[in-house]
Amino acid sequence: MTEFLQRLRDQLGAAGLLEGSDLAAYENDWRKRYIGRALAVARPASTDEVAAVMRLCHEHRVAVVPQGGNTGLVGGSTPDDSGRQLVLSLTRMKRVRAVDVFNASLTAEAGCVLAEVQAAAAQAGMLFPLSLAAEGSCTLGGNLATNAGGTQVLRYGNARELCLGLEVVTASGEVWHGLSGLRKDNTGYDLRDLFIGSEGTLGIITAATLKLYPQPKDRLTALAACVSLEDAVSLLGLARQRAGDALTGFEVMNRASLALVARELPQLAQPLAAADWTVLLELSDAESAEHARGVFEGLLEAAFERGAVQDAAIAQNLQQAKSFWHLRESIPLAQAQAGLNIKHDISLPVSAIPGFVAEMDATLAAYLPGIDVIDFGHLGDGNLHYNVQAPRGVAPAGFLAAHEAAINEKVYDAVQRRGGSISAEHGIGRLKRDELAARKDPTALALMRSIKRALDPLELLNPGRLV
Amino acid sequence: MTEFLQRLRDQLGAAGLLEGSDLAAYENDWRKRYIGRALAVARPASTDEVAAVMRLCHEHRVAVVPQGGNTGLVGGSTPDDSGRQLVLSLTRMKRVRAVDVFNASLTAEAGCVLAEVQAAAAQAGMLFPLSLAAEGSCTLGGNLATNAGGTQVLRYGNARELCLGLEVVTASGEVWHGLSGLRKDNTGYDLRDLFIGSEGTLGIITAATLKLYPQPKDRLTALAACVSLEDAVSLLGLARQRAGDALTGFEVMNRASLALVARELPQLAQPLAAADWTVLLELSDAESAEHARGVFEGLLEAAFERGAVQDAAIAQNLQQAKSFWHLRESIPLAQAQAGLNIKHDISLPVSAIPGFVAEMDATLAAYLPGIDVIDFGHLGDGNLHYNVQAPRGVAPAGFLAAHEAAINEKVYDAVQRRGGSISAEHGIGRLKRDELAARKDPTALALMRSIKRALDPLELLNPGRLV
Repeated sequence: MTEFLQRLRDQLGAAGLLEGSDLAAYENDWRKRYIGRALAVARPASTDEVAAVMRLCHEHRVAVVPQGGNTGLVGGSTPDDSGRQLVLSLTRMKRVRAVDVFNASLTAEAGCVLAEVQAAAAQAGMLFPLSLAAEGSCTLGGNLATNAGGTQVLRYGNARELCLGLEVVTASGEVWHGLSGLRKDNTGYDLRDLFIGSEGTLGIITAATLKLYPQPKDRLTALAACVSLEDAVSLLGLARQRAGDALTGFEVMNRASLALVARELPQLAQPLAAADWTVLLELSDAESAEHARGVFEGLLEAAFERGAVQDAAIAQNLQQAKSFWHLRESIPLAQAQAGLNIKHDISLPVSAIPGFVAEMDATLAAYLPGIDVIDFGHLGDGNLHYNVQAPRGVAPAGFLAAHEAAINEKVYDAVQRRGGSISAEHGIGRLKRDELAARKDPTALALMRSIKRALDPLELLNPGRLV
Repeated sequence: MTEFLQRLRDQLGAAGLLEGSDLAAYENDWRKRYIGRALAVARPASTDEVAAVMRLCHEHRVAVVPQGGNTGLVGGSTPDDSGRQLVLSLTRMKRVRAVDVFNASLTAEAGCVLAEVQAAAAQAGMLFPLSLAAEGSCTLGGNLATNAGGTQVLRYGNARELCLGLEVVTASGEVWHGLSGLRKDNTGYDLRDLFIGSEGTLGIITAATLKLYPQPKDRLTALAACVSLEDAVSLLGLARQRAGDALTGFEVMNRASLALVARELPQLAQPLAAADWTVLLELSDAESAEHARGVFEGLLEAAFERGAVQDAAIAQNLQQAKSFWHLRESIPLAQAQAGLNIKHDISLPVSAIPGFVAEMDATLAAYLPGIDVIDFGHLGDGNLHYNVQAPRGVAPAGFLAAHEAAINEKVYDAVQRRGGSISAEHGIGRLKRDELAARKDPTALALMRSIKRALDPLELLNPGRLV
């Protein structure tokens, strides 16, 4: 290790290698669920330096934990507590290498903060649509390594669908120059999509070429009240039909989640009377706000006629549109104020969601009367945050200790039975690795392990994560 | 082999195994460029039977050539002439297993003809947008194995982007049950996209869950004349900005290609005066034909003002819209009538296309005066069919024999220099395998070969293709 560290120092210089005791920002995840200890933190400034680090690690058999903004939720980007894993931070690689307006693409390095990528696109009059809560600190490399989702998936897809090409350093320190700006390329296996979402276990993404979109002329938001989740699904179908891809948001909130917001954040206006399900719809219009308003009015009228919607409000201005979104985005905060809870980031076929929710709500009510299900999420993507709060008057910590494992099992069993996923957008990391091993199709697991062995035979890349 | 064939007969029965001398339909590709000889043709009727066949092949070390509609262009789905490869035809597996309107998805078996999949979607009031010339005979399995493109890629993407989940039989006869209808699922490596486009070399796709879309309310088509390819690229940017995803077609045709159509197919009306570049635009509108017409008028007006367009015609009715498309689709026929030519299915960043065309046109004119470049294709996808016709008066066969290799090298060199692809949508198969080995990034090739070894260590799956 002494020789390895010396060679690393020679390679990277003082700015490129952090050693010693003050590495906590790199060693612990931001939720402080994983407290680790790093051998050192390498901070290469270029792809060549990343490759040189990997060649040294390969030669000395040192395990590497790639890290971006360290905003992950599943313990995927911090070292274990052995003190033998090298953190490889990409945060110094933050150049936007090129913006190509005519090809509607942008090439940026892995360490770029997502908001900086969005800003570079906007400066060129274009849109990079990936958007999520951590965008001010998460990095492009992390977004791609975890196939990030966020609030614009319904229209633009996950990070994977926004990427045209990658530059990747392999476990042995080779560089794959795959920064293609092509929309069509059938010359071999889809390596790009294999690295995307592999959580740093197959290679290190150092740069990416991304898709840009035209900026929409205007955005318009509406709230709608439904008596059932079936009606919300029916409204989704109608909205897709009438608005096509102008529909960029379709979020649902159950009665309990808005009641919780009313209790915990009473200063927030709730424009509609409480309903079993409240839907937030967003249109991004290529023409004008007036056009979007016309589409919304036609859509809501049709939905009223069909009986799918009981009440609705279209935002009258940007301020009000923001307040609608703020309501939706305040649910996690209201939950945090109310105390610890059990979170699930699940996805299901959209058609299976009403049945799942009815069954789970009944199962949990029977299991523990008074239990509070805070159910909200991206219905358009089939992605629910099905969170479970302690019955009122019960201490959250004790509730979690006593019931978390049992409730997780009930929820994941029901998800699995209906062909759903136990991690829609947060990934696996360390948190769900055993759950994945227990629940994933065994042939898929065997294929994944074969691929891992083929691309990282010495298990140097983020060992103990994902597979 | 005798024992193997006997066990295969026992497994599949008479309907499931074709032997003897009358197998030409399975042994030769439809363009008759690859004449092969099969050991036999297995025609399993279910996923379990496919798995049983693969287990037998694995045990007896028999190589398998998976085959769908046998409409490929690169020799990827017919056996070599050794008589030792088993053709595995999926054409008996043609059940549409499920249509889920609320989830906007459809599950079908690999042997379904593409047109049947489209029809099943239409019957449910939805659209499955994959569309290509061979749709009456190509199969879903082949479409996915080759990541087919076609005429709707600009808006809906290639086959890969239209697929949510797969069922796959591995080289050792295991079944991966991955028929997910999920739009978000971050539980491990992206096996789906690895199998899609792998041309039968990593596993056998037996069924898929596909994305459906709302049927557009109406389609509208226009032709526009541009004085340069730069103007056509500028028109594309403008069209994207104003029409958003309603823009479903953006095809270009150079002067020579429409002149060839005028010579060979004089009965076809050409609505615009000859121009250096003619663009075909298609809008698929979620609202109405009137709305689409308004968008077109606004777009073309802005393009005139900007000087990007010199002349334009919007189709007045469905009949005329069809005749615009027919003009574009008749170019290959006009080429065939004019005699053999050298075809290239290339892609480039859209921004690089004008420079590439200017350079190549000049290079070829200098190389062989009088040479005729028939250049047309999906500009919106960066995909050109840059085809080269013999100078008039020169016999095509002799022209090809003398110049094909040299011209291919010039074209592919220029494509490679600009970060393009030598196979945008047709794949690699046997035809371009050596070209790929010579031109692909060496790290990418090494990664591809590692994956092939990991998933098919005995080289049973479509050996000699792609990698």
